[in-house]
Amino acid sequence: MSSAAAPAARRPGGRTARIRTQVLDAVSAVLTESGYDALSIDAVAARAGVHRATVYRRWHDVGGLLADVVDAAGGQPWQPRDTGSLRADLAALNDEIQDSLSVESSIALALIAVSFRSEEAAGALRRLWEDRYEQSEIIVERAVRRGELAPGVDARALLVAATAPVYHRLVLLRTPPDPDLPDRAAHTAALAAAAGAFG
Amino acid sequence: MSSAAAPAARRPGGRTARIRTQVLDAVSAVLTESGYDALSIDAVAARAGVHRATVYRRWHDVGGLLADVVDAAGGQPWQPRDTGSLRADLAALNDEIQDSLSVESSIALALIAVSFRSEEAAGALRRLWEDRYEQSEIIVERAVRRGELAPGVDARALLVAATAPVYHRLVLLRTPPDPDLPDRAAHTAALAAAAGAFG
Repeated sequence: MSSAAAPAARRPGGRTARIRTQVLDAVSAVLTESGYDALSIDAVAARAGVHRATVYRRWHDVGGLLADVVDAAGGQPWQPRDTGSLRADLAALNDEIQDSLSVESSIALALIAVSFRSEEAAGALRRLWEDRYEQSEIIVERAVRRGELAPGVDARALLVAATAPVYHRLVLLRTPPDPDLPDRAAHTAALAAAAGAFG
Repeated sequence: MSSAAAPAARRPGGRTARIRTQVLDAVSAVLTESGYDALSIDAVAARAGVHRATVYRRWHDVGGLLADVVDAAGGQPWQPRDTGSLRADLAALNDEIQDSLSVESSIALALIAVSFRSEEAAGALRRLWEDRYEQSEIIVERAVRRGELAPGVDARALLVAATAPVYHRLVLLRTPPDPDLPDRAAHTAALAAAAGAFG
């Protein structure tokens, strides 16, 4: 999700962490400026101002670099907004997803694209999505506590139903972002949940 | 959708059509057996038993070949099943989508993957999806005629809501197919529609 766009630069630590930050930021820069086909150990090392052998020794190949970019994003603190209602919480989540996928040269979109070519990147993206959906389940827990939803609702199924149309439109159908879609998809999922779809 | 998997071989016509059939079937064969990175004018010409210059003259590059595979699939006759109920019609559509995406070396999945690398293939895939969703709108029209849905429902939004979770799980989350998902996603969309989500 959107935090895949967060620069690794926020990570603390010593020289090793600093080199990781430089290298992962260079991966993002090369990806978004020149695209996947321009991504290579050499291009990243040059961009990061780090010796090629250092990058090669630690990340081995492009797949290893991309997987670490995603893992670094997963390490960033993230939590969904708390707006006070299920529909608005889901709409805020969808807004964040739509923004991250529709910005100029989206790193989130680039990572999805490369996940089709690197098993290592695909695995890392799968872990990131798993984390984000798990972190988003609190949206459903809050709705249950407010009495908006009956206990025992399948939080994951509800979250996937609410977010999938946004990904579908921007990543697969590749149609321009629709400013109304985040709330419309949220509203649809909330109505279905109220009708017992995920019970 | 699933018909992206249909071989071009059903197309009628003379020598030109026969060569197109041989070449497009060769593209599908190379893609599913060896993957996108193995796809080249030379590999396709060799596989099709057609002269390299012939392939080059007509399709120019890999993007042109892939776009024509998708356009050929779009030219195949296709219509959604008529089961007698909205939920079952949508579930049948989702079953077809899930099958096409989860078969061993799915051509549908391969085309989605390459659409991230070829603007020409992306455009063709966009046209195919537009056709398939338009052809699927009859599912909603039938439900309105049966009185299952109120007139004026946004058929496209309903169809995207019903199908997006299946694509999301198999194409983006890359999790194994869930035999219950096609009907569950159909049921969710039907409940939301009955609650006025797409009115």
